[in-house]
Amino acid sequence: MEKQTLSLAEQFLQTRQRSFQLCEPLERDDYCLQAAAFASPPKWHLAHTTWFFETFILKPFCANYQPIDPIYEVLFNSYYNGIGEQFPRPQRGLLSRPSLEDVTQYRETIDSAMCELLQHTEHAHIDEIKRRCVLGIEHEKQHQELLLTDIKYSLSKNPICPTYIPIDTNSAGSKEAFQDVCQTEWVAFEGGVVSMGVEGSEALDDFSFDNESPKHDHLLQPFKLASRLVTNAEFQAFIDDGGYQRPEFWLADGWTEVQAQQWERPLYWRDKDGQALEFTLHGLQSRNPQSPVCHVSAYEADAFANWDGARLPTEFEWEYAASQQRFSRDSSLRFHPDSNHNADPLTQLYDQCWQWTASAYRPYPGFSASKDAIGEYNGKFMCNQWVLRGGSCVSPPDHVRATYRNFFYPADRWQFFGIRLAK
Amino acid sequence: MEKQTLSLAEQFLQTRQRSFQLCEPLERDDYCLQAAAFASPPKWHLAHTTWFFETFILKPFCANYQPIDPIYEVLFNSYYNGIGEQFPRPQRGLLSRPSLEDVTQYRETIDSAMCELLQHTEHAHIDEIKRRCVLGIEHEKQHQELLLTDIKYSLSKNPICPTYIPIDTNSAGSKEAFQDVCQTEWVAFEGGVVSMGVEGSEALDDFSFDNESPKHDHLLQPFKLASRLVTNAEFQAFIDDGGYQRPEFWLADGWTEVQAQQWERPLYWRDKDGQALEFTLHGLQSRNPQSPVCHVSAYEADAFANWDGARLPTEFEWEYAASQQRFSRDSSLRFHPDSNHNADPLTQLYDQCWQWTASAYRPYPGFSASKDAIGEYNGKFMCNQWVLRGGSCVSPPDHVRATYRNFFYPADRWQFFGIRLAK
Amino acid sequence: MEKQTLSLAEQFLQTRQRSFQLCEPLERDDYCLQAAAFASPPKWHLAHTTWFFETFILKPFCANYQPIDPIYEVLFNSYYNGIGEQFPRPQRGLLSRPSLEDVTQYRETIDSAMCELLQHTEHAHIDEIKRRCVLGIEHEKQHQELLLTDIKYSLSKNPICPTYIPIDTNSAGSKEAFQDVCQTEWVAFEGGVVSMGVEGSEALDDFSFDNESPKHDHLLQPFKLASRLVTNAEFQAFIDDGGYQRPEFWLADGWTEVQAQQWERPLYWRDKDGQALEFTLHGLQSRNPQSPVCHVSAYEADAFANWDGARLPTEFEWEYAASQQRFSRDSSLRFHPDSNHNADPLTQLYDQCWQWTASAYRPYPGFSASKDAIGEYNGKFMCNQWVLRGGSCVSPPDHVRATYRNFFYPADRWQFFGIRLAK
Amino acid sequence: MEKQTLSLAEQFLQTRQRSFQLCEPLERDDYCLQAAAFASPPKWHLAHTTWFFETFILKPFCANYQPIDPIYEVLFNSYYNGIGEQFPRPQRGLLSRPSLEDVTQYRETIDSAMCELLQHTEHAHIDEIKRRCVLGIEHEKQHQELLLTDIKYSLSKNPICPTYIPIDTNSAGSKEAFQDVCQTEWVAFEGGVVSMGVEGSEALDDFSFDNESPKHDHLLQPFKLASRLVTNAEFQAFIDDGGYQRPEFWLADGWTEVQAQQWERPLYWRDKDGQALEFTLHGLQSRNPQSPVCHVSAYEADAFANWDGARLPTEFEWEYAASQQRFSRDSSLRFHPDSNHNADPLTQLYDQCWQWTASAYRPYPGFSASKDAIGEYNGKFMCNQWVLRGGSCVSPPDHVRATYRNFFYPADRWQFFGIRLAK
Repeated sequence: MEKQTLSLAEQFLQTRQRSFQLCEPLERDDYCLQAAAFASPPKWHLAHTTWFFETFILKPFCANYQPIDPIYEVLFNSYYNGIGEQFPRPQRGLLSRPSLEDVTQYRETIDSAMCELLQHTEHAHIDEIKRRCVLGIEHEKQHQELLLTDIKYSLSKNPICPTYIPIDTNSAGSKEAFQDVCQTEWVAFEGGVVSMGVEGSEALDDFSFDNESPKHDHLLQPFKLASRLVTNAEFQAFIDDGGYQRPEFWLADGWTEVQAQQWERPLYWRDKDGQALEFTLHGLQSRNPQSPVCHVSAYEADAFANWDGARLPTEFEWEYAASQQRFSRDSSLRFHPDSNHNADPLTQLYDQCWQWTASAYRPYPGFSASKDAIGEYNGKFMCNQWVLRGGSCVSPPDHVRATYRNFFYPADRWQFFGIRLAK
Repeated sequence: MEKQTLSLAEQFLQTRQRSFQLCEPLERDDYCLQAAAFASPPKWHLAHTTWFFETFILKPFCANYQPIDPIYEVLFNSYYNGIGEQFPRPQRGLLSRPSLEDVTQYRETIDSAMCELLQHTEHAHIDEIKRRCVLGIEHEKQHQELLLTDIKYSLSKNPICPTYIPIDTNSAGSKEAFQDVCQTEWVAFEGGVVSMGVEGSEALDDFSFDNESPKHDHLLQPFKLASRLVTNAEFQAFIDDGGYQRPEFWLADGWTEVQAQQWERPLYWRDKDGQALEFTLHGLQSRNPQSPVCHVSAYEADAFANWDGARLPTEFEWEYAASQQRFSRDSSLRFHPDSNHNADPLTQLYDQCWQWTASAYRPYPGFSASKDAIGEYNGKFMCNQWVLRGGSCVSPPDHVRATYRNFFYPADRWQFFGIRLAK
Repeated sequence: MEKQTLSLAEQFLQTRQRSFQLCEPLERDDYCLQAAAFASPPKWHLAHTTWFFETFILKPFCANYQPIDPIYEVLFNSYYNGIGEQFPRPQRGLLSRPSLEDVTQYRETIDSAMCELLQHTEHAHIDEIKRRCVLGIEHEKQHQELLLTDIKYSLSKNPICPTYIPIDTNSAGSKEAFQDVCQTEWVAFEGGVVSMGVEGSEALDDFSFDNESPKHDHLLQPFKLASRLVTNAEFQAFIDDGGYQRPEFWLADGWTEVQAQQWERPLYWRDKDGQALEFTLHGLQSRNPQSPVCHVSAYEADAFANWDGARLPTEFEWEYAASQQRFSRDSSLRFHPDSNHNADPLTQLYDQCWQWTASAYRPYPGFSASKDAIGEYNGKFMCNQWVLRGGSCVSPPDHVRATYRNFFYPADRWQFFGIRLAK
Repeated sequence: MEKQTLSLAEQFLQTRQRSFQLCEPLERDDYCLQAAAFASPPKWHLAHTTWFFETFILKPFCANYQPIDPIYEVLFNSYYNGIGEQFPRPQRGLLSRPSLEDVTQYRETIDSAMCELLQHTEHAHIDEIKRRCVLGIEHEKQHQELLLTDIKYSLSKNPICPTYIPIDTNSAGSKEAFQDVCQTEWVAFEGGVVSMGVEGSEALDDFSFDNESPKHDHLLQPFKLASRLVTNAEFQAFIDDGGYQRPEFWLADGWTEVQAQQWERPLYWRDKDGQALEFTLHGLQSRNPQSPVCHVSAYEADAFANWDGARLPTEFEWEYAASQQRFSRDSSLRFHPDSNHNADPLTQLYDQCWQWTASAYRPYPGFSASKDAIGEYNGKFMCNQWVLRGGSCVSPPDHVRATYRNFFYPADRWQFFGIRLAK
C-alpha cells in the first residue's frame, strides 16, 4: 500500500513536470496566446490542470485547506457547472493576470499540497483521493495534447509562421526521407457478437474513462479495415479530382461547411510558388506525400472515403480490430506524423493521427455518469460529436489504448485527425 | 397491370388534391409567409412538390417535354445539387412571383402530364416512372405535414395569434375533456438479436424509404418502454422543479441552447394572466394538462428523461417494441394531439407526436444511396440529426409505420415532437 | 374658413386615393413582400399611414372614438416610442393577418372618420386637427415614395426580375432616346452670409417639416455647382478606371463597406452577355448611358467626386443655388430617371434623383422638436445620416422644394439617389 | 539650423522614451493584451509608432536602408492602404512573435537610424524629413494616449480588476478629497463671424494637424457655455430619473445602442454592495461624485443634455470660447480626472476629459488631404464620427490646443470622454 501511494505521487509529479517541459520551447509572449474560442492559451492549461487537483481533491479532502485565490475557482473552471460560474472560454487569452509567475507559483503550491495529502495513507478518504488523483493525471495528459494542438493553431494565425520547436534534422521531415510507403492492404474481420468497452477501472496502470464503460456485447457484420492511414498524396488526388467542388461526395452539413469556410484543402496545407508546404510545430515545412494526411474534419474524411469507394469504420469495428493487435506505441516525443514503413497487418493505430470513425458519440448501453461535478467530465458531451479512435504523435505515451474514445465535432480540424478507411 | 397503373394515378391525384385541401383554410396573404429559414411558405410547398414530378419524371421520361418556365428548376429545387443551383432557402418567402395563380396553373399542367404519362403502360421506362411516382407521392405526403407545421410556426410570430382552422367544438380541446389519463406502465422487452429495418420496397402499398434499409440484425439489451407519452402536466412538474435552470439535467450543447435561446418552456406554451395556454393550429387555446407535451427539442426531451430518472429509447428499442403491436392509426384529420384513454400496452405510437429517440441518424450497415440526384433524398443528411419514430396528429394517414425513420436536429422544435421514456 | 376645411378634406382624400393607385399594378402576392428590414411591405405602408391619422388625430380628438383593433396600435407603429411598443420592423412581412381586405377596410373606416371630423369646424381643437392632418398628408406622400422604392428593392431579389408596371413605350427608356446630354457647365455662386431654411409653416400650401427650421443665417464661401447630374456613362468611366478597387478615392467607412458588401457597381446595374442593363420598376431594361446614375450610396458619390477632382456640395450650397431658380417639376407620374436635354443653368434639381450633399444631418441652430410623440418625426434621426436635397422621379408632385431636407445613412442605396458635383 | 535639428532629435528621443516609460508599470503578460478590435496591445503600439518612422522617413530618405524584416511592413501598418496590405486589426493580440525583445530591438535600431538621419543637415530632403519627423512625434503622442486607454479597456475585462499603476495616495482619489465643486456658471459669448482653425503649420513648436486647416470664417449665433464639466453626481441624477429607460431623451441610433448593449451607466462604473465604484488605471476605486463623469458615448452625452434642458456645443462654439482663454495645462502625469476647484470662467478645458461636441467630423471648407500615403492620416475618417474638443488627463503635455479636432464614433466610450453643456 505504502509503495503504491508513493508510486502514485511519483507519477503525479512526473506528469506535472511534463506539462512544464512542453512549455519550455515557447516564447514568453506565447503563454497568453488564444486564436480561437476552442484553443486555450498555454498559461490557462497550466492553471486549469492545477485547478482540477485543487477543486476536486484539496478543497474537499484537505483539512483547513485555504484556496490561494478564491477567484481562481471561476477563472480556471472549464465547464463544470456543478462547481459554479466559469470565466468565458473565448476570453481566456485576456487573463494577463494572474501572471505566468503567479501561475507557476500556483502549480508549485498545489503540487506540494497534493504530495503531502497523498502521504496520509490513513486518511478516511484515501481511496477516493487516489481515484481522483489518477483521474487528474489522465486529465492533465489530455491537456498536454491540447496544449500542443492549441499552440499550433494559435501560431498558425501569425503570418511569420513561427516555430514551436526546431525540427530534428535526423527525423523524417527532410526530403530524403520521402520514400514510398507500403500499399494499403484490406484486413478482413469476421464480425459476430463481440465484447466492446471495458469494465470501469480507476487504477493508474489499468485506467479507463467512464465513457469506455460498461463493457457490453455488440453485433458486428463482417468488415475490412485498411492496413494504414490515407496519405497526403492520396488526399491530393482527391483534391485534384475536384473533391472540394463536387457536392456528391459530401454530407449536407459538410457541404455547407465547405461553402461557409471556403475549405479547399486540409487545415495546415500551404502552397507557395509551386511548393507543397505544411504548417507544423516545426514551422513551415515541405509536405511529405507519403505521410498520413492530417488535420481534416470528419466531413473531409467522409467525403474522401465516398470518393474512394470506401467508408469510415464504426468505432466498434475499429476497437474490435485494434484489440486483436499487440498494443505498441513509440514513447519518444514527436510533433508531426511520419510516413510508415512497417509491414504489420494494421499499422499507424496509435502514433500518427486520431482516426475519424463513422460513429456518433453516444453513451454505451447502461452508461451513467457519476452524479457529482466530476460526472460532467464526459457524459454531457455525448451529443453532436463523432468518435475518433487510436492516438496521435502528440498523445502522451501510455495515455491511449484500444478502448479509448476520443470525440470532437465533425467540423473540427485542429487536432491531429487523419483517415483510416473501411469497407 | 392496367389496374395497378390506374390505381397509382388515382392515388397520385388523391395526394395532389389533399395538398390543396390543406391550403383551403388559409388566408390569401398566408401563402407567401415564411417566418424562418426552416419554414417554407405554403405556395413554395405547392410548387416544390410539383417540381419533384416535373424534374425526376417528366423531364427525363416524357418525350418532347417542354418545361413551363426554365427558372422554376432553380426556384423550386430544395437541395438537389445534382440538379443544379437552388434559390436560397431563407428567401423563399420573397417569391411573390410566380403568383399563386401561376403556381396553381403549374400544378394542373404537371398533373395532366403525369396522368397521361402513367397511362403509357408500354413506355420503355414505365417501371422506373412508377417507382419515382410512388416516391413523389410519399414525398408530397411529407410536405403535407411540413406545410402544416411550417404555417403553424409562421403564424405563431404574429401577435394576433391567427387561427389556421377553427377548433371543432366536439373535440378534446374544451376543458370538459381534461380527464385524467391512464398511469404510465413500463412495458418490458427481452431483447436479443432482432431484425431491424426492411428490405427496400418501392411498391405503393408496401413502400419504405431507402434509409429504412437494409434489413439487418441488431443486438438489443433487455429494456422497458413507457406505455404512453409524457403529458403537459408532467412536463410542467419538470419546469416547476427548476428544470430549465439546472444544468445537471442537460447535455452540454442543450444547455448552451437553453442559454442562447432563453428557453423556459416548450415552443408554443403561453402563459397569460394565470392561464395556461398554447398556440395551436386552432389559435390560442387552453393547455390540456393530460395531453402529450409537444414541440420540445431533443435536448428538452433528454433533460426531462434525466430529471425523471429515465432515458430516451434507442430507435432500435422503439422499432422492436412497435413492430410487436398491431399498427393502428386513426385516419381522421386532426391538428393537435389529444389526451389518451386507451388502455392498450403501448399507446400513442403514431397519432400524437413524433418521439425523440436516443439514436443519432446514421446509415444502417450496408446502406448506400442511389447515385443519381434522387439519391440526395436521405443519405446526405445522416449526420448531426437525431432519429424520431412514430408519427404525429398531422402525419398523413397511411404514411407512417414501425420502421419509418424521421430525423431532425436536436434543437428543432417546430414539428410535433413529444417524449416517450425508456428504462 | 369653411372652404379651406373642405379643401383640406379634398386634398386628404386625393392623397389617400393616390396611395391605392400606386398599388394597382401590384400582384396580390406582392402586398406582404419585404426583402430587407428597411423595405416595408406595401400592405404595411397602407396600414401605417392610416394608423398615423388614427393615432395622432382620431384617438385624441374624436369623441368616443373606438379603435378598430387595439393591436393595430402596436402592429402599425413605425418608431414612435411615445405611443408605445412597436412590432419589430424586420418582421413586417410576417403580418399575413390582418389581411389586405382588413387593411382596406381599415383605410375606409379611418377616411370616413377623418372626413367627418374635418367638418366639425367648431371643434375646440380644429386648428390642431388641421395642422396634424396636413402633416399626415405630407407623411403619406413620403410613404408613397417609399412604397415604390421598397417594392423595387423587394422585387429586385426575385431572379425573375418582375415588372411593377410595364414601360410606357413612348418614354425615354427605348434605345432611340439615348441622345447625348448637354455638357456639364459649372455655375458659379458668390456666397456670403445667406439665409437658410424657412420659418416653420404648417399650412398645406406652404408646408415645411420642422427640420427645415429655424430660418437662420449661414456664411457661404464662393462655390460652383454642376449644371446637371452625373450620368451612367460618366460613372462607368469611374468603374473602368478601377474606381471600386482603389482605396485612395474612398472614405475609410466607405472602403470598409465596399469590401464587406463587395460593391462593384450601382445597386441595380446588371451586365449580361455584354449588355448594359438595369433593374427598374419596368423590369430589366437597357441602361441609358445619358441618364443620371442612380441608386448609389453617399460613399460612391463621394468617391466618384474625388476621382473626378470635384466634391459634393454642402446642403447650404445646394439650397442657396436652388433657391435662386424658379421651382419647376413635371407632375406626371414617372418611375425612372430620364436623360436631360434642358439647357437651363441648373437642371435636374427635383425630378430625377435625390442628390447627396456633403452635409451630415444635424439640427439647424435653435432647432427643437415638439415635446409630444409627433416630435419624434424628425429630430431623433439627426445623427449618422447625410442630407440629400432635391427630389426624384418618384417623389409625389408638389411634395419637394428648395428647403426640403431628405436624409439617409451614407451606405443606403435603395432610394433614387444620384450625384451632383460641386467645386 | 544645426541647433534646430538637434532640438528635433532631442524631442524625438524624449517622445520615444516616454512611450517606454508608460509601459513600465505593465506586467509582462499585458504586452499582447487586446480585449477588442479597437484596443491595440501595448507591444503593437510600440511597434507601429516605430513603423511610422521607418516607413515614411527611413525607407524613402535613408540611402541603402535595409528593412529589419519585410513582414513588419504588413504587421505594423495600421490603415495605410497606400503602403499596402495590413494585418487585420482585431488580431493584433495574436502577434506573440515578434517577441517584446524583438520589438524593443526594432525601436532601438530605428531610433539610431533616425538620429543619424536627422544629423544630415545637408540631405537633399532634410525639410521633408523634419516635417515628417514632427508628424511622427505628434503621431506617437496620440498613441501614448491610446496606449493608456486601450490597456485600461483590456484590463477592465479581467474579473480581477487589475491595477495598471497604484494610486498616488496624495491624489484626489481618497474620500476625504470629495469636496463640493463650484456651481456651473453659464459663460455667454456674442458670436458673429469668427475665424476658425489655423493656417497649416508643421513646425514642432507650432504644430497642427491637417484637419485643423484651412483657417476660415464661420458665422456663430450667440451662445452660452458651461463653466465646468458635468459631474458624476449630476450624471447619477440623470440615471436616477430613469435616463437610460426613457427614449424621449435619446437620438434614435443612441436608443438602439442602449437596447443592443444594455447600457445603464458609464462604461467603467461599478456598483457593489451599495458602494459606488469605478474601474480606473489604479484598479477599482471609489467614485468621486464631484469628479467629471467620464467614459460616456456621444449618445449618452446628448441624452444627458436633453434631459438637462441644454445641448452640446458645436465644435465652433467650443473653439471660439476656448481660444479666448489662456491655454493652461498641468504637465504632471495623471491617470484619472480630478474634481475641480478652480473658479476661472471656463475650466477643465484640456486636462480632464475630452468634450463631445454636437458637430459631425467633416472637412473644413477648402480642406484637401495630401495625395501620398500620409494623406490617409485624417481625411478619410471624416465621416460618421463626431468631433471632441479639449484634452484629457492622459493626453501628453503640450499635445493639445484650442484648434485640435479629436474624433470618434458616437457609440465609442473607451477614451476619457466627458460632457460640457451649452445653451
